[in-house]
Amino acid sequence: MTSRRTFQAPKGTRDFYPPQMAARRRIEEVWRRASIDCGFEEIEGPTFEHLDLYTVKSGEGIVSELFSFRRAGGEDDYALRPEFTPTLARMAAAKGASLPLPTKWFAIPTHFRAERPQRGRLREFLQWNVDVIGLGEPDGEVEIIEAAVLALERFGLTPRDVQVRLSHREAIAALLRSLGVGEARVPAAFELLDRFDRLPPDEFARRAGELGLDEGAVARLREAMVIARPMSDGPGAIAAAMGIAAAPLASIEPLQQRLRASELLEWCTFDPSIVRGLAYYKGIVFEVHETGGAERAVAGGGRYDGLISLVGGPDLPACGLGMGDVVLSLVLKDRGLLGEDEGESLLPRPDAFVIALDPEATPRSLAIVRSLRRAGHHARLSHRASRNLGKLLGDASKCRARFAVILDAGASEGRATLKDLASGGQVEVAIANLPAELASRLASGPAE
Amino acid sequence: MTSRRTFQAPKGTRDFYPPQMAARRRIEEVWRRASIDCGFEEIEGPTFEHLDLYTVKSGEGIVSELFSFRRAGGEDDYALRPEFTPTLARMAAAKGASLPLPTKWFAIPTHFRAERPQRGRLREFLQWNVDVIGLGEPDGEVEIIEAAVLALERFGLTPRDVQVRLSHREAIAALLRSLGVGEARVPAAFELLDRFDRLPPDEFARRAGELGLDEGAVARLREAMVIARPMSDGPGAIAAAMGIAAAPLASIEPLQQRLRASELLEWCTFDPSIVRGLAYYKGIVFEVHETGGAERAVAGGGRYDGLISLVGGPDLPACGLGMGDVVLSLVLKDRGLLGEDEGESLLPRPDAFVIALDPEATPRSLAIVRSLRRAGHHARLSHRASRNLGKLLGDASKCRARFAVILDAGASEGRATLKDLASGGQVEVAIANLPAELASRLASGPAE
Repeated sequence: MTSRRTFQAPKGTRDFYPPQMAARRRIEEVWRRASIDCGFEEIEGPTFEHLDLYTVKSGEGIVSELFSFRRAGGEDDYALRPEFTPTLARMAAAKGASLPLPTKWFAIPTHFRAERPQRGRLREFLQWNVDVIGLGEPDGEVEIIEAAVLALERFGLTPRDVQVRLSHREAIAALLRSLGVGEARVPAAFELLDRFDRLPPDEFARRAGELGLDEGAVARLREAMVIARPMSDGPGAIAAAMGIAAAPLASIEPLQQRLRASELLEWCTFDPSIVRGLAYYKGIVFEVHETGGAERAVAGGGRYDGLISLVGGPDLPACGLGMGDVVLSLVLKDRGLLGEDEGESLLPRPDAFVIALDPEATPRSLAIVRSLRRAGHHARLSHRASRNLGKLLGDASKCRARFAVILDAGASEGRATLKDLASGGQVEVAIANLPAELASRLASGPAE
Repeated sequence: MTSRRTFQAPKGTRDFYPPQMAARRRIEEVWRRASIDCGFEEIEGPTFEHLDLYTVKSGEGIVSELFSFRRAGGEDDYALRPEFTPTLARMAAAKGASLPLPTKWFAIPTHFRAERPQRGRLREFLQWNVDVIGLGEPDGEVEIIEAAVLALERFGLTPRDVQVRLSHREAIAALLRSLGVGEARVPAAFELLDRFDRLPPDEFARRAGELGLDEGAVARLREAMVIARPMSDGPGAIAAAMGIAAAPLASIEPLQQRLRASELLEWCTFDPSIVRGLAYYKGIVFEVHETGGAERAVAGGGRYDGLISLVGGPDLPACGLGMGDVVLSLVLKDRGLLGEDEGESLLPRPDAFVIALDPEATPRSLAIVRSLRRAGHHARLSHRASRNLGKLLGDASKCRARFAVILDAGASEGRATLKDLASGGQVEVAIANLPAELASRLASGPAE
């Protein structure tokens, strides 16, 4: 207890001081508001789950990527949640037949991965999850994409900054089969294709060879992977470019129609290189990427029909998307869309900063801040011993207060000076009327 | 992958479905707004910390109460955070001399205890933390108590429902010394006194005996523990009732003056039975309790000068309070202050529920919901195959929508019916004007 030691946050985790927290709250608020406006309802689950909730769908291999633990003296294995979909599926399954259909849920939980931290990838991160249960292709997908785009728009991004890159696992599977990949190896091929952008070409070819693809097939696969097309192209043109029959892309046409009706088409690209790593996806899969391609995916998702029944619930169609805060923050900061000074400009602004110039006025200043706060104003009180008005007004401006309440000789007669720190104008007001005076001036002032 | 299994949330954790989540958000919003109005700035840290951040101040004994773990292949011991103060002290210490004084921080993190779940005590819970660094007794305490009371008021509680019960560890220590407890045993005596209300009298007497208190001393201690006095009583009267000298209660007088000035006095009681279990508290300590005494403490806190230097920072005065969501929810629900139907009435209300009676109108209804959502309205679209207007309006009412937008034969001519679901009144409006029409009607409607 006597030695002085220094402590740091665990590697790959973050300390959020007020400016960073203000930026985080800004992101959460845009996510939450977009979700609610799109008719999603918020849920949340435990921060840790029984370990086998993750192994049941992903196999034992996932354990090395998890933070897992037991309670001292306990017998249950737990893991910090690496993603939200298993919790959501468990919660939907628990409702059974009483779950209203469709159910549209969102959540903004914190997640954990025991991997090596790198740019855009931390050991603890926030992720916005939006999920639709009970709608098939493409109605569910449109709901998800609309919510994601609404949030991206509100962050100030445009279709020139980011694109929703969509693909269809059935189309990729058809391509793989046409190149000679046996059915049993299709899941392994999905995992390989998910790393297409990140693996060196030699390494990709070597691993593709292990899956039964010869040199010519790898070349054809490579060509098909890079045929990204605007979503306004028809499924026939896409299938032809990929070298497959149009049938597996049948659901792309109604998807296009709905995206067009919702004015979402310009946000979307068909891109066969999107396959998603997770084993439970089927059908349409998608990722949101910065068009510059500098960062990892901003978001990823897809259809996971069958997952809810796997964890004991009814067999229901479902799809969803997860958007993490780490890559998104990099993309927004890069464009100056997340406040200046690392979030300083996003900090809540005080409505009033109360300055007692007369030492006798201290009890009165306590009463004033309390009355302002009770009236719903953000009010601060100077704790400085200084009675230098210039210095104290400097403190008020530094925290970006809108008004200063100055208690001087008039305070003993029940009067204070209310000073507008933007215009510099000031008036004398009765202390008893301060909350109402401040409210009316704030309401008539310039909008934030 | 083939067997159907059912999964449950880990024992002592919670699934928050939309109504429960709405109640949780209501609590968080009151906490956050009260903190901001009182001039606190929000921070957040990692969900887990290095294990020794907890053992450095609490000793190895705390390990059994923690969920601790290692990363597979890693060498660092981590623990899920059981409380926020060590993280806050670490973050303050890391700023060193650059930390502005006073610093007022709040946080609403989730916490974890590996203990047996019971009423009011879970293994995962939310806790509101408000902390002031750089202010001594009693200025820091007044800031903390004011924020707590502002939140309690906004929940609808009054001084008749809950009281801030305050004590002073120096006064308790003086009492213990006067009864013959040696200095080395004072910390153990604090731990025992913290359980005064919960231990059977015999057990209390037996343990007090182990600390060197004879029968007469235990009786005097018992008497002193139950002398709870309104905070309007002077320190002299309190000291006399406790049977100690007034000196250790010297800081109570300026505290009373400030609480009186802030109109907080009626919320506070001096109560020597409040000692707090945590080893790092010194000086003033406090808990918020329901006056009926039915539940555990709603909140607890105190002064922890010295903790920041213990984790490598400057030697700064500091005090804070933590308010958990579990006991608070019980107290609020008991008084009908947390929405009806377990939170159903707190769910966000849709502004518009869009109904396409004409199957041809589906693309148009997609465009309409998108335009409403882009304009910042909470808009829902019926996915039902039914074209029965009565049923569909029933769905709209069930989710408490304010307006229905009905697309019928007029839709092809660019017109829709906007129906006020409260009054039943309806008007025909141009589809292009829907967002603006809805905004003006929502603005002129009855306030929530």
